[in-house]
Amino acid sequence: MSDSLKIGVAGLGTVGASVVRILQTDGEMLANKAGRAVELVSVAARDKNKDRGFNGADLNWCDDVLDMAEDSRLDVIIELIGGADGVALDLVKMALENGISVITANKAMMAHHGAELAELAERNDVELRYEAAIAGAIPVVKTIREGLAANTISSVYGILNGTSNYILTEMRETGADFNDILKIAQDKGYAEADPGFDIDGVDAGHKIALLSALAFDMAPNFERVEIRGIRNITQTDIAYAEELGFRIKLLGVARQTDLGIEQSVEPCLIATDRPMAAIEGSLNAVYTESNYANETLIVGRGAGGDETASAVMSDVADILRGNRLPVFGVGASQLRDVRFADMEERCVPIYVRMIVEDKSGVLADLTSILRDLNISVKSALQHSEIEQGIVPMILRLHRAKASDLTEALNRIEKLESVKETPFTMRIIEQGD
Amino acid sequence: MSDSLKIGVAGLGTVGASVVRILQTDGEMLANKAGRAVELVSVAARDKNKDRGFNGADLNWCDDVLDMAEDSRLDVIIELIGGADGVALDLVKMALENGISVITANKAMMAHHGAELAELAERNDVELRYEAAIAGAIPVVKTIREGLAANTISSVYGILNGTSNYILTEMRETGADFNDILKIAQDKGYAEADPGFDIDGVDAGHKIALLSALAFDMAPNFERVEIRGIRNITQTDIAYAEELGFRIKLLGVARQTDLGIEQSVEPCLIATDRPMAAIEGSLNAVYTESNYANETLIVGRGAGGDETASAVMSDVADILRGNRLPVFGVGASQLRDVRFADMEERCVPIYVRMIVEDKSGVLADLTSILRDLNISVKSALQHSEIEQGIVPMILRLHRAKASDLTEALNRIEKLESVKETPFTMRIIEQGD
Repeated sequence: MSDSLKIGVAGLGTVGASVVRILQTDGEMLANKAGRAVELVSVAARDKNKDRGFNGADLNWCDDVLDMAEDSRLDVIIELIGGADGVALDLVKMALENGISVITANKAMMAHHGAELAELAERNDVELRYEAAIAGAIPVVKTIREGLAANTISSVYGILNGTSNYILTEMRETGADFNDILKIAQDKGYAEADPGFDIDGVDAGHKIALLSALAFDMAPNFERVEIRGIRNITQTDIAYAEELGFRIKLLGVARQTDLGIEQSVEPCLIATDRPMAAIEGSLNAVYTESNYANETLIVGRGAGGDETASAVMSDVADILRGNRLPVFGVGASQLRDVRFADMEERCVPIYVRMIVEDKSGVLADLTSILRDLNISVKSALQHSEIEQGIVPMILRLHRAKASDLTEALNRIEKLESVKETPFTMRIIEQGD
Repeated sequence: MSDSLKIGVAGLGTVGASVVRILQTDGEMLANKAGRAVELVSVAARDKNKDRGFNGADLNWCDDVLDMAEDSRLDVIIELIGGADGVALDLVKMALENGISVITANKAMMAHHGAELAELAERNDVELRYEAAIAGAIPVVKTIREGLAANTISSVYGILNGTSNYILTEMRETGADFNDILKIAQDKGYAEADPGFDIDGVDAGHKIALLSALAFDMAPNFERVEIRGIRNITQTDIAYAEELGFRIKLLGVARQTDLGIEQSVEPCLIATDRPMAAIEGSLNAVYTESNYANETLIVGRGAGGDETASAVMSDVADILRGNRLPVFGVGASQLRDVRFADMEERCVPIYVRMIVEDKSGVLADLTSILRDLNISVKSALQHSEIEQGIVPMILRLHRAKASDLTEALNRIEKLESVKETPFTMRIIEQGD
């Protein structure tokens, strides 16, 4: 065996504590598998005395976490502090510059600074690994970067936020409204007191930016992710989606089209009989379409201490085994200079919910506006009143250009018979 | 860049032809990703003149495939001949002995001779890779061996044979009987003229032996896989399974229990709301349960030229990148000497279909026999007659020991009111 791999763990929240426990419990098993011992040299956390389920007495505590990046004994720092900038970013940059490899679960940092950090890692000939940053335990970085290495990927999308998927699942199963389920999720600790990061799609946005980078051999570009969350979804939408044969999921989507690369996070309708539709509760899932492998779907736990630590430890195992990989699948100098699509030009099938007066001629007014903008209706649904004389009108539209749709909906909203701003969701079809 | 990686392709069926096309089309892209060029040095196939969709004029054809193993220029031989023994095994052994790495899609050879070949590869310090041997395009070897490296896996199971899954899906969707669907599948080319290898579970048996080896750090042991196929499944089973909340899937299952390792291929009932139940048609899927990652499911195309070639090429990419891995996750000398469970001792929940006389007292007779053997009934279903005075009686049993169940069914079969040998299927529950 060669020298042991010397590790520092920065940040001892749920994930960091799991990583330390796994290193203590299974370090030897891992060393047997990899042919190299692994040694936990130091840890850093704000509170030394908190009970984290492991014996911390023998650990070497680092009072200033940035000192860890100056510790010449270390081969790898596992960064589990979090935050796009601040001390996490400082630590990672210093570590890479000092020739220390980094494993991180920090999606925000990787989504915002991934290209710069990849370049830094490469220049200093060290590894920068982030299997835990996208979908918890699911080895999605490994699947795309290695498993699909010979493929040209045309699209990647996924259920990337467990909190949002849990809320949508509960809404469908219980019939309760969004705000009530959110409140229950907060009480149970499944959603944060400030839930916007999850339910407004920012977290999924960081993750799809990373998936997109891996799929399309480019630097992550979070700014070019168009983001919408799930706050406006109602029981009406869930019921009509089901009637149309769909289930509603908050999806991060990245695809290569003739117009360029489209990146978004948005609530989508996906056919009920597709496996992705069956991914319920806090599970995550990532789907890819590529030229040779065709379709792949990977499903698993997207959060949780042990689950996320499992992904961190797979990066440790790779480094132990001496496996080297460029951060986004190709060398930093070869990352593609891609063109992003103008999202106003995007053409996708659309679900529209309108709240209208229940009187004759309304559908004719709506469809004539759509027809004037060359948007065709695949089906229209209208059932019971939600209040006296007011009904939801649900339209399923064939592929419509986003700018045409916006114009049509502006005109529709001005109709006297239309009572609310129309609400739209993308429909995902096979091949999207 | 270092010297190019020099490859020979042995066997130019659907998969081999795809591999050659991908090397010709995407070799440069792969070289850019991996930092090393790849060069197709020679090919071997029985028929030189067949149209395979690529330009074979510039290829160096090897008349005797075994000569390939003596070609000192080669770094890697991709073995796509097939068959557990014979020329494929001879070629692979010679190649490994001569210091040439091997990539293979040959599940039968790996299931029967995996341990010996792993030892040979290790002794000669070369790679033996088989990502394409288990589930086509799905990177399942990579997921288990690398992605879950730090986990202790408790069970792995999957839909591993696309032909069988296609037949079961069509039976459920069309209501037609097994033999009719098999005939249609044969006419369409989805099933072989001699379909036993697929529908009797042998193919899935090879694959679960390999998954089991990867999951439990042991040598593959195909002899210890208990195998049953899908020939006896009827529309009655499909309908009653659905009524009980299950879908029928032919699963390869390996799990670690207190009694030892259980390995089987058998038709199983799996709850309709689990993602595995939604894997229809020719798709494959592999599920794992482990101590940290918890549950993971990977889904994709288990067959097809390009799909299987995608997995072969991921092995090529790994070797191009210089990544080294022990064949079954640990070194050949460290493979666990495991205990296999006596399958007669196995305790799983069971579905039983009996064909009985429609008269009073039958259920009492059946349940008293079961009670005498300490087997308890969770639910019993009996609906319409299938012929005058004859009905199917469906029992869902709580966990029952296999030997007790066998004894009970022997006694039940002797009852005058029981008209056919009872048919049983395992029920998969969460945590199995």
